[in-house]
Amino acid sequence: MGEKSLIELIRRRVRGGSAVVAGIGDDCAVLRVPAAHDLLVTTDFTLENVHFRREWHPPEVVGWRCLTRGLSDIAAMGGKPRAAFLSLALERGVPQKWVDRFVAGLLEAADEFRVPLAGGDTAQSAGGIQADVVVVGSVPKGKAVLRSGARPGDQIYVTGELGGSAAAIARLREGKVRAADYERHFHPRARVEAGQWLRRRGLASAMIDVSDGLSTDLEHICEESGVGAVVEAGAIPRARVGHPTKEVALDLALHGGEDYELLFTSSQKIPAKVAGVPVTRIGRIARRRGMVLVLEDGRRRRLVARGWEHFKGNW
Amino acid sequence: MGEKSLIELIRRRVRGGSAVVAGIGDDCAVLRVPAAHDLLVTTDFTLENVHFRREWHPPEVVGWRCLTRGLSDIAAMGGKPRAAFLSLALERGVPQKWVDRFVAGLLEAADEFRVPLAGGDTAQSAGGIQADVVVVGSVPKGKAVLRSGARPGDQIYVTGELGGSAAAIARLREGKVRAADYERHFHPRARVEAGQWLRRRGLASAMIDVSDGLSTDLEHICEESGVGAVVEAGAIPRARVGHPTKEVALDLALHGGEDYELLFTSSQKIPAKVAGVPVTRIGRIARRRGMVLVLEDGRRRRLVARGWEHFKGNW
Repeated sequence: MGEKSLIELIRRRVRGGSAVVAGIGDDCAVLRVPAAHDLLVTTDFTLENVHFRREWHPPEVVGWRCLTRGLSDIAAMGGKPRAAFLSLALERGVPQKWVDRFVAGLLEAADEFRVPLAGGDTAQSAGGIQADVVVVGSVPKGKAVLRSGARPGDQIYVTGELGGSAAAIARLREGKVRAADYERHFHPRARVEAGQWLRRRGLASAMIDVSDGLSTDLEHICEESGVGAVVEAGAIPRARVGHPTKEVALDLALHGGEDYELLFTSSQKIPAKVAGVPVTRIGRIARRRGMVLVLEDGRRRRLVARGWEHFKGNW
Repeated sequence: MGEKSLIELIRRRVRGGSAVVAGIGDDCAVLRVPAAHDLLVTTDFTLENVHFRREWHPPEVVGWRCLTRGLSDIAAMGGKPRAAFLSLALERGVPQKWVDRFVAGLLEAADEFRVPLAGGDTAQSAGGIQADVVVVGSVPKGKAVLRSGARPGDQIYVTGELGGSAAAIARLREGKVRAADYERHFHPRARVEAGQWLRRRGLASAMIDVSDGLSTDLEHICEESGVGAVVEAGAIPRARVGHPTKEVALDLALHGGEDYELLFTSSQKIPAKVAGVPVTRIGRIARRRGMVLVLEDGRRRRLVARGWEHFKGNW
């Protein structure tokens, strides 16, 4: 489809929102956020055959997940998303129907989180589908929860369950799966409310979203904070997937990416549920650099960040 | 090259700026803009073989032009650029040297316009090079110059010269060209100062940057403002290119894209130079819809927007 018709398509679907003064149809979107707020900006590429496959992921799922990546980054700062932008490049021959359904999935997430789609760009790609999503959010001045605030003695917490998204990919390689059995992969919900709840109460000393896998994202907190971590293998909440449901392997919960849960540290006790989402303590921050995994039998292993590489998998 | 090393590369090069509270290395960039300002956000895809060709464009030129597209959008609102974000997808085998030089070109523009690179994303592409650049700017509240403010009787003005960039592409098809002979293509300078100058004085009723070609961009102003336009062919400032220099054909000045000049309307007299850039009156806004081109012999033609399509050309 031509660029022109795609711009028109997006334009028709764009809705204003409280933050959007002027949207698509001008050189820039004009936004207004509360005066005493800092801005948050995050950009995420979603590429065909790297982040999704057309034969595995229905277009609505691709659209939903695109925006979720950005919303989750805003959540990890304790922020409120204010506006989203979609840049979409399509190779020739991508059916109009695919684009309609992709945009519908993205807008479903936008509606659910009350984030207006405020603009974007379109282009013809030399091959495949590439989407770049920008989310702009805000947080009261100076209150963004950074990765660098973890201190020795802080406890480490995670929302929800881990490994469910990676388990879906492992299963997709073997054949068809029912999306309903792998909800966290096909329909992840960014933990925006939980992030804001923690920030408002000043409970999180450091926070990140689990997009690259627990081991990798915890390492980011450790590096930025100049600390180490001790993780209890038995405490990690492993996702239950499939039908009948089965707990995922420890490796998937440790190293699998794209769960979009929040990983945070706190010197205070955190309730078992925050904004409706379960929260589990999985370890503590240590002075000594490096990450340690304590197995259920008490043995200690070095925990190495394996670095999630999407479809390549790392286990 | 791997994602990790590219992120590190960008991270090393990132500089803070007055607007950037926290940059790369967290889930989001944290920005602070003046309290009484509206935000401006623009996103632009730059795709290999659509917006540039590796055999035509040195990597520094690609990097410079990437950022210029966004800066020019901010200029067209009369805004000040505050921070830039780069999302870069590379196919396997893109040499490290290419990436280094690309980033150097982008940062050269960032330095010249004092816009910090505040973050971004990297990914491995299935084919080719894709860059998506986001520029965040600001403008005093309610003062953004929109496309919709042109009124019958306003005069139409353009900065600089037109057609120089399209002329370079026409020439590149035929063989090698000296970048110095086609400055506006290889090293366009966004008209950020001129845009702000006009906005501060309330002189521009509507404004857009000439990225899709005069005929198409003027049509955007006419559509958004609900007016028509009469353009005098003889008044259009045509670029002088090549060696020895030669004026480009009228068609290139009318329909060629990517000149990144400012096209604006005003009810007041505009000086012949604004912020060091020549300004030329090329016509006037009319009540009657549609665009008319008045030839030098006085004959009138309908002016049709041809819609710039990068390397496809339209003349």
